[in-house]
Amino acid sequence: MPGGFDPQKALELIQNVIRHDGEFAPLHEPYFTGNENRYVKDCIDTGWVSSVGSYVDRFENDLAALHQVPFAIAVVNGTAALHMCLLLAGTQRDDEILIPTLTFVATPNAVSYIGAIPHFCDSDERSLGIDAAKLDQQLHEIAEVRDGLCYNRRTGRVIRAMVAMHCFGHPADLDAILDVATRWRITLIEDAAESVGSLYKSKPTGRHALMSAVSFNGNKIMTTGGGGCILTEDETLAKRAKHLTTTAKRPHPYEFDHDEVGYNYRMPNINAALGVAQIEQLNGFVGAKRQLAKRYQEAFDGFKGARIFQDADYATSNYWLMALILDQPDISIRNEFLEISNAGGVMTRPVWELMHHLAIYNDCPRMDLSCAENLEGRIINIPSSVKLGIDNGA
Amino acid sequence: MPGGFDPQKALELIQNVIRHDGEFAPLHEPYFTGNENRYVKDCIDTGWVSSVGSYVDRFENDLAALHQVPFAIAVVNGTAALHMCLLLAGTQRDDEILIPTLTFVATPNAVSYIGAIPHFCDSDERSLGIDAAKLDQQLHEIAEVRDGLCYNRRTGRVIRAMVAMHCFGHPADLDAILDVATRWRITLIEDAAESVGSLYKSKPTGRHALMSAVSFNGNKIMTTGGGGCILTEDETLAKRAKHLTTTAKRPHPYEFDHDEVGYNYRMPNINAALGVAQIEQLNGFVGAKRQLAKRYQEAFDGFKGARIFQDADYATSNYWLMALILDQPDISIRNEFLEISNAGGVMTRPVWELMHHLAIYNDCPRMDLSCAENLEGRIINIPSSVKLGIDNGA
Repeated sequence: MPGGFDPQKALELIQNVIRHDGEFAPLHEPYFTGNENRYVKDCIDTGWVSSVGSYVDRFENDLAALHQVPFAIAVVNGTAALHMCLLLAGTQRDDEILIPTLTFVATPNAVSYIGAIPHFCDSDERSLGIDAAKLDQQLHEIAEVRDGLCYNRRTGRVIRAMVAMHCFGHPADLDAILDVATRWRITLIEDAAESVGSLYKSKPTGRHALMSAVSFNGNKIMTTGGGGCILTEDETLAKRAKHLTTTAKRPHPYEFDHDEVGYNYRMPNINAALGVAQIEQLNGFVGAKRQLAKRYQEAFDGFKGARIFQDADYATSNYWLMALILDQPDISIRNEFLEISNAGGVMTRPVWELMHHLAIYNDCPRMDLSCAENLEGRIINIPSSVKLGIDNGA
Repeated sequence: MPGGFDPQKALELIQNVIRHDGEFAPLHEPYFTGNENRYVKDCIDTGWVSSVGSYVDRFENDLAALHQVPFAIAVVNGTAALHMCLLLAGTQRDDEILIPTLTFVATPNAVSYIGAIPHFCDSDERSLGIDAAKLDQQLHEIAEVRDGLCYNRRTGRVIRAMVAMHCFGHPADLDAILDVATRWRITLIEDAAESVGSLYKSKPTGRHALMSAVSFNGNKIMTTGGGGCILTEDETLAKRAKHLTTTAKRPHPYEFDHDEVGYNYRMPNINAALGVAQIEQLNGFVGAKRQLAKRYQEAFDGFKGARIFQDADYATSNYWLMALILDQPDISIRNEFLEISNAGGVMTRPVWELMHHLAIYNDCPRMDLSCAENLEGRIINIPSSVKLGIDNGA
């Protein structure tokens, strides 16, 4: 066995932690034991299910408080949130946007919606986020700042913004990334889709950049069915975000004046009601997931050939998706483990195919991506549901 | 009083029909007296609230049956549905798309998302939809068919598609429009956002074009909070629609291969659950609204200076929004009526500002739009909720 990794033994350790009884164990399932039914029934009984309603306001206030920012704008999903963050950061057609290659496809897609071009960055093994030092080196090689803008000298395009994505909920090294962004005059956006409840140096992710995008998809730590939000400290941007996501209609009791090409991205009240109930329980969810991560770490202590990913010193991760990391990249042994675990009713998954490997993004600019390429053959996500942490004594 | 229209008297007639008791009467409110709470609770109790779930499948089947088409794809809202219809019709950047100027802003916005250009068409007073004869005349003046494509000779651009929108639920004259589209090699799309439950020559709207877009926003005859769907008879297009709206991921138990720039446009299961409950009641909703329209028509019989819009001979409209139509355009008398009715707790609204009057669409190509411009000063929407029809004996 390469690197001594025993797939069968690894599966047994996981089955022990999750007390697997043969039933299908999903990668991540939502947990509804709070006020979900009560709040949703309230929407239906009062007729307020749609885009205006008290739960939208309440959810936005709760999200702002959670993230310690003054403004949160609830939207229809995390992809829409990121699309809006990029637009509001001034992204234009043919701009380049720095994003990690190790991310979900929503990140480059949001760039593409504007006609801008992803420029792929390598990852740092400690955080799984953008490697700031390596990016700085790349920018020294290819970029220059002129008239307050960063240009890629090779392509002639403006490098407008950078999206720091918190992979599996683990905070990227935001201080280092923000330092690079600031020096190179690149606007920083956080893709905090996966990291609701995570802290970077004791502060929530989603409050360290100009704007941040969050997701409440059904597979996330808390869910609104489908949903997301935009976070910002900037009042002007917050107002424009609300305006742009609600068809850009100027306020008037009955007249219709839309002053820019707007979007239908608002979150319905019925989904926000679910969100209000979920956010009430979020602390417990994070605790449960951290407990599950600890149990996995204990189980794999001394195990040969793989370890459970552990958050960096500066981070308190929500451990959205737990990850088993092989010591050595080996697609064949990785796939063998995926096959036997999924066949045995324990859902596991490799990390997303790297974005620069997808045919649609294959010709985009990039730096050396050797760390991400190495990680691609090593990362396997394992069952991570809140309930598994609660069953483990959280 | 111009044309003899007495705003105070008109308001009294409306108040009588809706038995106005001084409480605020909205333009359109949803009606939940079926299985809404039961189905939504089922989603929460089983944990299936998000993008995969049995209510999405069931809602899609119900929608296909309702519209007498083999395929319905549930999406996040009507704007997203129209965006996808246009993309799937092959719309490319810089194409021209024929749309009515008398429409909601979502229609030209969906065109803009692709970088295509709206080309505005005039309306026919009988249906409030595109005037097919006038459009044919315009195409004879400006267009030519070359290599199977329609070109605007003045701009050099391809006129790729036409969107027939069923204004307030009243079916546009689809046979006449389809005839023009076919002769000029322009793909027809129905914007049936407002016309769920309406019939054109005894067949549901949404089944007469290559693809159709429908909306279930909170203000529509039936609602999913926010939502929409794509309808088509073409299996290949239906499969591509599902693929494109679900991030274009190729099916695989655990691998991530996205083969085109996809969208996160799927409808969450919890919203679909609401839709399944609503569609069960749709026949009753349509009946109630047609009863309300009849009562309004009776009340305004013989009234001077205005009438209640009545559907065309070929149509059985869902009467989504009832409309009072002044005999003569007069913005000042229209606004006087809007002021006194809204001040008196009866919500009324003018038709949308015409799209070619919005600064963002002001420089788009257009034909003579005199009928729509005339209608702009004459149309006032009045309270149209299902409940008002039920109170009127439906």
